[in-house]
Amino acid sequence: MSKEITYQRKVNFYETDAQGVVHHSNYLRYFEEARGFLLEHLGYPYYKMHNEGLFVVLVEASLRIKHPLRYQDYFDIDIKIYVENAYSFCFDYVVRVEDTLCAKALTKHCFLKDNALIKIPKHILKIIDDR
Amino acid sequence: MSKEITYQRKVNFYETDAQGVVHHSNYLRYFEEARGFLLEHLGYPYYKMHNEGLFVVLVEASLRIKHPLRYQDYFDIDIKIYVENAYSFCFDYVVRVEDTLCAKALTKHCFLKDNALIKIPKHILKIIDDR
Amino acid sequence: MSKEITYQRKVNFYETDAQGVVHHSNYLRYFEEARGFLLEHLGYPYYKMHNEGLFVVLVEASLRIKHPLRYQDYFDIDIKIYVENAYSFCFDYVVRVEDTLCAKALTKHCFLKDNALIKIPKHILKIIDDR
Amino acid sequence: MSKEITYQRKVNFYETDAQGVVHHSNYLRYFEEARGFLLEHLGYPYYKMHNEGLFVVLVEASLRIKHPLRYQDYFDIDIKIYVENAYSFCFDYVVRVEDTLCAKALTKHCFLKDNALIKIPKHILKIIDDR
Repeated sequence: MSKEITYQRKVNFYETDAQGVVHHSNYLRYFEEARGFLLEHLGYPYYKMHNEGLFVVLVEASLRIKHPLRYQDYFDIDIKIYVENAYSFCFDYVVRVEDTLCAKALTKHCFLKDNALIKIPKHILKIIDDR
Repeated sequence: MSKEITYQRKVNFYETDAQGVVHHSNYLRYFEEARGFLLEHLGYPYYKMHNEGLFVVLVEASLRIKHPLRYQDYFDIDIKIYVENAYSFCFDYVVRVEDTLCAKALTKHCFLKDNALIKIPKHILKIIDDR
Repeated sequence: MSKEITYQRKVNFYETDAQGVVHHSNYLRYFEEARGFLLEHLGYPYYKMHNEGLFVVLVEASLRIKHPLRYQDYFDIDIKIYVENAYSFCFDYVVRVEDTLCAKALTKHCFLKDNALIKIPKHILKIIDDR
Repeated sequence: MSKEITYQRKVNFYETDAQGVVHHSNYLRYFEEARGFLLEHLGYPYYKMHNEGLFVVLVEASLRIKHPLRYQDYFDIDIKIYVENAYSFCFDYVVRVEDTLCAKALTKHCFLKDNALIKIPKHILKIIDDR
């Protein structure tokens, strides 16, 4: 079972480019905000991880832009987390301005401890995957 | 047949994050630089497109990070362009620090004219796909 | 008389750098957000300007960092707007994390219409300077 | 006596904003690149500092934009370093596109060791100020 939430945001001017739309690199930044929001909602904010010496790294990202965001758009990101295997977990994202689908994306992440890849710690597995 | 080239770059400090590595969103920015470099090399820089009223938009991107870039790394991006179909063309990217594979990526693009999707113009097709 | 307000914000991870603090360039981006927030509060959001063919450009900025912001800091920006002369107006900014002074700044702006510098339009002067 | 050099750069598309010019926050990023270039030229690149446990922090910046940079502009930054007092040193910057003055700026910096402010170390003083 995945855990999901909706993150709300407004486009800032400095996130636009000379084509008049949000520069595509900024979607990855929005997704990072949404992940922090979801993890906080699940009761496991990043600083708890850091206090336990754990680091999350992004190993994959894919993004499909259907309808570019524009300056001052208010948009929603529907974000879900799910476990892929013992080592990796994923988030998927749907970016919408009201009912207009703007983008879809997926990112994949792993845990590092002392700079080495580790299995997803059990207490975290319990939080992000409660089947 | 694809057209390819190697783009060389150094990591700037402001591109790093508090994990001490290049923030993943910046890879998309490096790729944009590499595309500009390749198109210029092929004799078709962006300003020519703009003068013809053509805009290139990114519709898809996927990225796999194997070994994150760090501050002051000198890295290479091997970039190739190829045509996917009448409407879309792609670039693929291999990011290396010497012989270490750092990342692989792919982006997909379309042409807009007067805000409408158009087929890849013939004179551009000739430049990017000379089979 | 100046108009003032407090804008609240949280530091995002992608705004940090390898020194573990917010990269100084991002303060200018935070200030832009704060300006938008204040102008909206004054009933004159940017899109109204754009609809009137007016553009605001930043001509000067100065920034003094006392105590750098860090990841996940919640901070306040106390922002004030005031008119400098017939052509230019300024914002000043105090950045705080609770009672700790983090930074002070000032930016100066002008209006452009049809790419030419113009005096501050009267209806805007009335909004930002009601002495 | 100040030490100076000229740093050359091209504007990237992702550095522009919806006004069609370089977003002002990016000037601070360009200056950081120019500082790295000058320090390398003086034989004292950042990684040497880091190896000695020294960190340089920016404490002040001021920027005046005369003529905004645009996409694909090739620009020069004339950068000078000089010592202000026992604790702080400055850089000043002139940004030009050929003979057109685009911006002027100044940044002020200090050294930290073990998170405490220290005087400019003597061996560095010798490099940046050879009166």
